[in-house]
Amino acid sequence: MQAKASIEVCYSPALFPLYNATDSIVVVIDVLRATSSICVAFENGAEKIVPVAKIDDCQAYKEKGFLIAGERNGEKLDGFDFGNSPFNYMGAQVKGKSIALTTTNGTQAIDAAKHAYKLVIGSFLNIGVLQQWLLEQNKNVLFLCAGWKNKFNLEDTLFAGAVASYLQASGEFMADCDSAIAAIHLYEKAQHDLFKFLENSSHRRRLERLKIEKDIEFCLMQNLVKVIPVLENGALVSMPNVKREIAESSPA
Amino acid sequence: MQAKASIEVCYSPALFPLYNATDSIVVVIDVLRATSSICVAFENGAEKIVPVAKIDDCQAYKEKGFLIAGERNGEKLDGFDFGNSPFNYMGAQVKGKSIALTTTNGTQAIDAAKHAYKLVIGSFLNIGVLQQWLLEQNKNVLFLCAGWKNKFNLEDTLFAGAVASYLQASGEFMADCDSAIAAIHLYEKAQHDLFKFLENSSHRRRLERLKIEKDIEFCLMQNLVKVIPVLENGALVSMPNVKREIAESSPA
Repeated sequence: MQAKASIEVCYSPALFPLYNATDSIVVVIDVLRATSSICVAFENGAEKIVPVAKIDDCQAYKEKGFLIAGERNGEKLDGFDFGNSPFNYMGAQVKGKSIALTTTNGTQAIDAAKHAYKLVIGSFLNIGVLQQWLLEQNKNVLFLCAGWKNKFNLEDTLFAGAVASYLQASGEFMADCDSAIAAIHLYEKAQHDLFKFLENSSHRRRLERLKIEKDIEFCLMQNLVKVIPVLENGALVSMPNVKREIAESSPA
Repeated sequence: MQAKASIEVCYSPALFPLYNATDSIVVVIDVLRATSSICVAFENGAEKIVPVAKIDDCQAYKEKGFLIAGERNGEKLDGFDFGNSPFNYMGAQVKGKSIALTTTNGTQAIDAAKHAYKLVIGSFLNIGVLQQWLLEQNKNVLFLCAGWKNKFNLEDTLFAGAVASYLQASGEFMADCDSAIAAIHLYEKAQHDLFKFLENSSHRRRLERLKIEKDIEFCLMQNLVKVIPVLENGALVSMPNVKREIAESSPA
């Protein structure tokens, strides 16, 4: 019997050094909202996205002809072309463009995991193509939840649990640590209404975020896009041939 | 309306610096097995327990007339009086004794939180008296899960969820972060059979731990002891008057 590929979940970029990522596909997750927005940008034809940890470094990309996108604590940064809402990344404004992006949590998580065997971007928006692609790789998977300022958050964990649950059900993967097991349990409890689960769960925090209610609803929708952003030479690009491959391998 | 006291859960000693513990009661949790064993020791009349992070430092206490107890990776350390099994801490061998203790996770967690407003020790063995005492304090509570080598673990999280659930049900406390909310959800799912939940959940790890199966069953029993170990001047002691107070305030 062949050993199963392992599934691990890291709940905070601050804990990432505890994991061995050199032989794992790392899925970076910041459901609200960085990794959702990144998926939308590529679905709408963005050329590449350079994740940048620091605000100053991001601004410097403006002179190189990049659009610059920046957010801290949920707010768009002054002087930036746009913030972190997925609705900013739709339509003609991003098509063919290169974007430099800095956010509170998501771009920090990408930075923490940049030396992984491979780094891809996950969100509910691209969950279907991502699940199928991960299944085909038959490689260890390590989910990195961006969390909130290095603390655990629920929405990223639920996404990790959803994909982990799918992979484990295939029989080819095995949840290999307590955090992966917990993520699956939480997803099982939440799966029938993610929005309501998060609403009931983090009522206080959601109240503070009323301004982005539409963003939240959007970011919890599944399979709106068919791209898998992947880090190559320090920039995120859309993995080639994903749409075609998925279309060909899907049952009619 | 008076503001409710907050409940937070920190899943790893490595994340503890992200929390403000100067105004919180910190409950350190290492269900398997350090904090369970500490509770048993005080129930059996131990005088004090000095938690020591390093093995060498712990050994040095031998000359001062202490019993020395030490464990790494689940194994008793050579030359130590005993290891980390709760069954080591019963009966006449600990009565009136001072013990220096070093373990893989538990004593590291105590060390990380030593500057808290107050540091107490939690385990399923003392859950009842601890819950009642916390309720009476009406103070912010921060649970620190010792985890496993700074990674998340399920048993410590379930204990945090159990107490958090109890406190929140009183109406005087509010789960204030996603990790507290997740711990409550996980406890709700596990509460009817903690042993089975952990067995199903971490089958692999439990197999590796078959040798301590009896310890695990014991450590998941509730309300076997009526002590609350508290850190005072660098040493754990049994909080005075807990038994009497609890007895007096309990309904007949």
